[in-house]
This record gives sequence, C-alpha cells and structure tokens, in this order.
Amino acid sequence: MAPTNTNECQGSAELQVKRAPVVVDGVTLNGPTLDIQEAEGFLRDAMFIIMEEAVRKATDVKEKVCEWHSPEQLKELLDLDLREGGEAHPQILQRCRDAIRYSVKTGHPRFFNQLYAGLDPYSLVGRFITEALNPSLYTYEVAPVFVLTEEVVLKKMVELLGWTEGGDGIFSPGGSVSNMYAVNVARFQRFPEVKELGLSAMPRLVMFTSQECHYSVAKAAAFLGIGTKNVYVIPSDKRGKMIPAELEKQVQKAKVEGALPFMVSATAGTTVLGAFDPLEDIADICERHSLWMHVDACWGGAALMSSKHKHLLQGIQRANSVAWNPHKMLMAGLQCCAFMVRDQTNILQQCHSAKASYLFQQDKFYDVSYDTGDKSIQCSRKPDAFKFWLMWKALGTKGLEARVDRALAMARYLTEEIKKREGFRLVMEPEYTNVCFWYIPASLRSMSDGPEFWGKVHAVAPLVKELMMKKGSILVGYQPHGDKVNFFRQITISPQVSREDMDFLLDEIQSLGKDL
Amino acid sequence: MAPTNTNECQGSAELQVKRAPVVVDGVTLNGPTLDIQEAEGFLRDAMFIIMEEAVRKATDVKEKVCEWHSPEQLKELLDLDLREGGEAHPQILQRCRDAIRYSVKTGHPRFFNQLYAGLDPYSLVGRFITEALNPSLYTYEVAPVFVLTEEVVLKKMVELLGWTEGGDGIFSPGGSVSNMYAVNVARFQRFPEVKELGLSAMPRLVMFTSQECHYSVAKAAAFLGIGTKNVYVIPSDKRGKMIPAELEKQVQKAKVEGALPFMVSATAGTTVLGAFDPLEDIADICERHSLWMHVDACWGGAALMSSKHKHLLQGIQRANSVAWNPHKMLMAGLQCCAFMVRDQTNILQQCHSAKASYLFQQDKFYDVSYDTGDKSIQCSRKPDAFKFWLMWKALGTKGLEARVDRALAMARYLTEEIKKREGFRLVMEPEYTNVCFWYIPASLRSMSDGPEFWGKVHAVAPLVKELMMKKGSILVGYQPHGDKVNFFRQITISPQVSREDMDFLLDEIQSLGKDL
Repeated sequence: MAPTNTNECQGSAELQVKRAPVVVDGVTLNGPTLDIQEAEGFLRDAMFIIMEEAVRKATDVKEKVCEWHSPEQLKELLDLDLREGGEAHPQILQRCRDAIRYSVKTGHPRFFNQLYAGLDPYSLVGRFITEALNPSLYTYEVAPVFVLTEEVVLKKMVELLGWTEGGDGIFSPGGSVSNMYAVNVARFQRFPEVKELGLSAMPRLVMFTSQECHYSVAKAAAFLGIGTKNVYVIPSDKRGKMIPAELEKQVQKAKVEGALPFMVSATAGTTVLGAFDPLEDIADICERHSLWMHVDACWGGAALMSSKHKHLLQGIQRANSVAWNPHKMLMAGLQCCAFMVRDQTNILQQCHSAKASYLFQQDKFYDVSYDTGDKSIQCSRKPDAFKFWLMWKALGTKGLEARVDRALAMARYLTEEIKKREGFRLVMEPEYTNVCFWYIPASLRSMSDGPEFWGKVHAVAPLVKELMMKKGSILVGYQPHGDKVNFFRQITISPQVSREDMDFLLDEIQSLGKDL
Repeated sequence: MAPTNTNECQGSAELQVKRAPVVVDGVTLNGPTLDIQEAEGFLRDAMFIIMEEAVRKATDVKEKVCEWHSPEQLKELLDLDLREGGEAHPQILQRCRDAIRYSVKTGHPRFFNQLYAGLDPYSLVGRFITEALNPSLYTYEVAPVFVLTEEVVLKKMVELLGWTEGGDGIFSPGGSVSNMYAVNVARFQRFPEVKELGLSAMPRLVMFTSQECHYSVAKAAAFLGIGTKNVYVIPSDKRGKMIPAELEKQVQKAKVEGALPFMVSATAGTTVLGAFDPLEDIADICERHSLWMHVDACWGGAALMSSKHKHLLQGIQRANSVAWNPHKMLMAGLQCCAFMVRDQTNILQQCHSAKASYLFQQDKFYDVSYDTGDKSIQCSRKPDAFKFWLMWKALGTKGLEARVDRALAMARYLTEEIKKREGFRLVMEPEYTNVCFWYIPASLRSMSDGPEFWGKVHAVAPLVKELMMKKGSILVGYQPHGDKVNFFRQITISPQVSREDMDFLLDEIQSLGKDL
C-alpha cells in the first residue's frame, strides 16, 4: 500500500520498505517518515547561506544595514501565501536568502535604532545549540544543563547587585514581563491573600514610577488588574531622574486618598535619555513607607559589570527586586531577561506556583527543588540564560566590563564631537550610552528659539531617518519627548562599532539633512 | 597606547593599528574590537559540533535519549563557575560539546515526555535564521519580513478556526501567556474601564474552566488579579470533557452570589488525557449568559489541520478567542504560540496599547498599522511565526495534515497493542495522541482492585521511569490524576517515530518493570 504522507523530507520511500508496514486508520505505519540524517544536507546548505548572508554580510560595515521596501512591495517580493502543497529544497533555500536579504541587519555596526545591537559569536553559538536541542526549562529531568546554567548566572548577577544575603530569580521573555513579575511579587508580599481572592477584595493599590519610566510599567498595571490610573507618575528632573521629594508627596497623597501604596518602580537607565534614578533616596522613602522597591535596570544594569560606572546604580543593593536584560548592552541576544528578588523565602514559588501534578511530581527520584518551573508564570520556557553563560565563559567578567567601558567611552566621544560641530545640539549631557541630539539644518540656524523654530526642527529627524533607511546607510532612533520635539537618540553598544562609525553618523545626518 | 579590551575575539590588535586611535576615559577607541569575519572560524567549528552532536546523534534512535546525572554530579562535570578571565575557543567548543552531551535530546525519536517532541529541519533553519538576525517584532521598520510572515500565518490559522469574518492575533511566549491574554481581553471587552481603574473598582469577576484544564488558567487568574478562587472549576466526565450542565449550574451559582461571570476557558486537547471539551454546548451557554468563550487549543489545535480529525474541535468557530501552539503537535520549535481573537474592533491594540512615543512614532513615512508591537504585553518580542511559516511553505498544508493523521494513527496502534498485552491496562480510550495506561507487574496481577493494589501500582511508573532515564532508553511522562494513581502518558508526535518505537516502549516498560 502506498504511504499517505509522501510530502516529508527525503528518503521516506526508501526507509518505509525496510520495515513491515501496518495500516491504521488509513495511514501506513512503519519506519520513520522523516529521516534527520537525510535532512542534514538541507540543513548544511541552509547553514552555509546563514553564515554567508545573515552573519558575514549582515555585519559588514560596507554592506547596507537594511534594504527598504514598503509592506506592499515586500509582500510581492516574498510570495508569502501558504498553500496545500509543499516546496522543494532549492525553493526553500531561496526563501531563506530572501528573508535574510529583506530583513534589517541588527548585527550591523550601523544599527543604532534600539537598546540592543551587534552580534556576539558566543551568544549566537549558545542560541544555535538551544534551538537545535529545543529544551523547555520547567524541570531538571528534561533540561538539566539549562536549569544549572540559569542558577549559576542568576547567582552571579545577584552578587553584582550587591545582595550579600543572596536572592532568587528567573529568566523571563522580556523586560516588560519582568516588570510584571515585580508588580505581582510586590503585592503578594504585602497581601498574600491576593493570589486566591483577587483585587476586588483589596483596597485600591497604588504604585509609583517616574515620567521617564518604560511604558511596560503602565502595561503591567493594566494587565495585572491594578489599573493605569493607579500608577502615580512622579516628575523627573531635567536629566530625567525621578525627584525623590515628589515621590514622597505622591505617596502621602495616595494615603490621604485612602489608597494603599505598595511599590515604587525606579529606573536605572531610562529608555530615551539613559537616566538613572537616585536609588538611595528612593530606597529611603520605600523603607519609610514599607513600599516594595523595584528597579527596572533592564537597560542600565550592564553598568554593574564596570568598576568605573557601577556608581550609576548606587543603592540597587537596597532594592527588593530588579529587572536586568543582558540582551541589551551585554549583547546576549534576544531574549535574555533576568528578574531577581532579594527575598529569602522562596516568594517566586509561593506567588506563582500552581503545583501541576503532571509536571512537578513530588515522587521523582532526584531533588525536585531543581524543578524550577513553578516559579514562573510560563509553562514551557526557553533556556535564555545559557547563551549568556557561554558568552560569559568566553569573555570573562573582565571582557564584559571592557565592552561596557568601551561603549560608554564611545558615547562620550560622540558627545564631544556633537559639541564641536555646527548645526548639532545636545539635548543633555549623557550619563550612559544614550546620546540625544538635534540636527538643525542651515536654513533654520538663524531663526530664534520659539514654537516656529521647534516646529520645523521637529520635522527634521523623521525626514533624515527616511532618507537613511531608503539608502540603507544607518538605522538610528528619534522621538519627541515630553516638551521636546523630535531628536535623534544614538545608542552605542557593540564592539563591532568603530570610532569612525560615530563620525559617519554625524557626517551622514549632515549630508542628508543639510538642505532641509 | 595598549588597548584596554584585549579579551575580545581574534584580530583586535591587528585591526586597531589600522586606524587612528583616540583615547577617551582611558579607553582606546578606533577600529572595531570584535571582527565577525574573524569570529567566523569559531562559528563554523561550533556549527560542525552542533550538526554532529545536537542534530545527527541527538536524533539517532540508536543513541541515548539522555545521559542521566544528578544535579551535584552534573555541576562537577560542567565547571559552571563564571570567572574574571575568559576562555579560549578550544575550551569553549568543549563546553558546547559537554552542554549538548548532558542535555536531554528532545528531538530523539524516543522522547515522549512532553507535549512537544521531534526535530523539524525547516523550523530549525527558520530558528537559526532569526537567531542570527536577532530581530525584535515591535515595528515594521526593524522587522519587516517577520511582521509580514506573522500576519500571513495568523490569517491562515484564523481561517482554520472557521472564523469567516476574519480575526486578529499575536504570537506570545507560551500558551500560558496566551491564556492570560484571553483573560485580559475578555474582561476588557466587558469592562473597558478596567484598564485604567483596575479591579478594585469592579465587582467580583468569575471565570469558568474544567477540572482538566491546564494549570496556566489558575496562574492567569492569580497574575491578572482575578484570584484563583474566582476560577470556578467545572467537573468533567469520565473522558475528561467539561460537563455543560455543570457549567450552567456554576454560572447560575456565581450570579446568585452576586458575582459577575465573564468568561469560560474551554480546553481542546487536555494536557493529561487529551480530551476535547464539547465546544458547541459550551458556546450555547456562553451566548445565553454573554460570556467570553476562550478555547485553550494549545495542544489540540493541530487537529484543525486534518480533515479526518478536525471534528474534535467542532464549535471552535464560535469561540471569541483561541490559544494554539504550533510548537507542540506541529513541531514548529519552542516557542510558537498563537493567541487569536474573533473580534473585529482591534481589541488587542485597545486593550494592551501604551502608545510609547519613542517606539511607535506616528510621523513615520510608512503605514504604521504595520507596527504591531503595541498589541502585545511585551516590548521586544521574538519572531516566532517565521519558523512555522518556513516549515509550512516546505511541507504545505497537506504535509502538516499527514503528520497529524500519522501521529493519531500511531496512538491508535499503541492503544490496540496495549489492549493485547498482559499487564497493561488503558486508563481510557484516547481521542487524541495521549495514550494513558498503567503497567501492572506480574506480582500484582493476582491482587483484587482496591486501595492496596492501587497503592502498589502508584509506585510502578516512577520506578520504571527512573530506570529508563538512568539507562537513557526512553523519556515518557507519568502522573497521578484525580482519583487515579500514577499512570504513564505516552505522547506521539514526530514523523521520526516509527511503529517499532511504540513496540519498544511497551517492551521496555515490561522488561524494566516485570520484577517490581
């Protein structure tokens, strides 16, 4: 009888005759219909393309950082439709080439658009390994290596936070989710009954964060049922740092209203300005009012690797929880996001466990405290710590420190160059690697500061960015911010970036924007 | 001046002399200190190891599925500590070999432990591509190919749900998170003000799910502030299906209590038994009481690919939302999890948006409706749809259907074999690929059914599993369930599995358990 599943990879016909077929429900069952050894040829061809196009060319400064097409154009170029029949290997390999070609090269030395960039070869190998092994990090029994590497990495990160008594943690799928963890743990620590009874049985809970915080704090409040209006937004100073006196005022205000303040989410390395909240002062206020102190150090946490720059996070040792994403400044690859708590009472487990008996059996033959999955809000979970562990092994703590120091020195270099150049204006002196600046085309330089001037400046960055993207020369971010019109935000991270790329950035903006 | 960052990859010294150095903050800045072209040799060596060890050997039925070591032993074997200094490439390559060696081979034909298994070469290539490109799926500008492939895959999945008017969706980091999305969207649809005001301003909300549901429903209720006690658990029948009349009763009960019923989470393919809730009957009740109908089809959704088996999900076309994980039965690789809503009002955006001006600028030069990131609770997000898209292109819808049909036929084959063999006893007739059974060693076969008998049977599966793991022959799940003592749960998914592996499973259990 003919096999019904002939669309599989090569070799199926040959393999099937080797064994005695049985027909069940109209399906012929005998040998495997997918032979991985046979599929290896395809994998090798694909890897050749990936190494050539997605690694070598994609990181070459002489190549484009992106090849721009509108969504409509790109749909035509890609032939995205999914059909009844499959496609042969040569066609699939061409699809791989096309997908890479039309993708933005985030590992390119001139990709400056986000708070991550570059390509670290050790992290990448770690990721290839975990993708090939496809583990899920709920139990030791199915992910022994990855449970242990997560434990070691978290322990080391906890040390860097200065939590001398230790702590606990978990890797999560993004800093936004880490901030959600913080909200949940904070309210559970204050009201353990919230897990069972929910918030409708609670007084109105209020949390505090600065106006410069990441937008995920609002998302967390909405998602966790706190409500965005119960996030009291604390003004920041001109450098983007939360003003402690204003925090104190808002806590008092919430109390007067009869609400229950329960946590502060401070930020170490804000998204736009790269500002660090004054953690010691905030810790004082949190202690005074028994508030959970969370620090969103997703972006700024990397400075803890540097003896030169770790002072930026002075006070983080007093935090109750911290979110820190090594996939950003430390280049561990998306995603690599640690959420850590200083607590010693296994609060992650208590707060999140659901004790599924099919997964977390208590009658296993090994120490089930290594089955860490019930600490998580996820069930299947990717082993995101492993790639960071491998990279850390390869570079050493000193190597990571050198990268951070170099990135900050590069930002300092760019800052000084901006000051020297006509037509460029700094938004503020950077503390971190966020360098924020306007470009003022010659036509506007004689205008006096005022709404008309700023209205015109507002249009510059989007236009320059459009030209850059269509040229494929640079990807850099811009945004309006508070009362400030659109400005560029240059982020330097990767050791692939050279000083000349900084010069090129300014040259390119000047060249594309000079006649606007 | 000597460079301060000499721990980087090869070639740095040579590259630095090529350019004019500038010293800033004690750091020498000039050319890149990481040259990816130089690092390619390392990447190639690592890829050779990965292909050999994590692909070829890891999927070879003649190799072990795992090499068991206790956590303490494994810590010694791996030398996990992270140190000041880095390690050279040969040492890192050995670490790669070790990490693979001591990992469980989830792509092995005899890995039956979870609701995912096997290795699909197309999905794996998709994952290698996205890891190399390291994109984040918030905006079209940085992830054009991946935004479009997500759109196409979701559209096709929505079609398979039978939502003729269309729908919307998003890929999330796990079915648990998808179920959380469902809770959030359901309550937002009923009470849009909950986003701002939170649950303390709401009446007590109650949701319903069956006793057989996935544990993430309880986690969702806790995390989202609903409270686990406000999840009313509906009894299931002997086959594991929610009893509609009991649902009706519980809805009435909640109303009498003055609470506000808002959603039902039905399950299509339960975790342990593989049962499908009666969706049409549940839809009737939801309509009658204006409840949001969510279907957790993370596991069972794959049956929608099969014209032979899609009847299992009859009624899903009436659901308001669905969670479906192609990383399970469809082998798209962890993680690949779609959350879909039938709504036509852009509710994902309304419910989750925070409108970050630094990311979702409205003055971009392209159609910003392609910047889909604000639909998500995440900020950076992995492009999990792409690997599924590539695999779908390669296999076609027919190829995916053949895999599902084959997996179910294999489960049927195993079921009939269990019936034939002495000492094996089915827990129930399977509807899906979950085959649940006890093994009764000869020493217990003469005992009459009763607490003592079942007490002894309870100890069998853990002991057999321990022996299997230490031998490395098979990984298969077991659990107690409701009033039933530990039984094996065999899950068949991958086309790498042959009929003989089913026979081997029973032989091996018999051989390891016969003298217990």
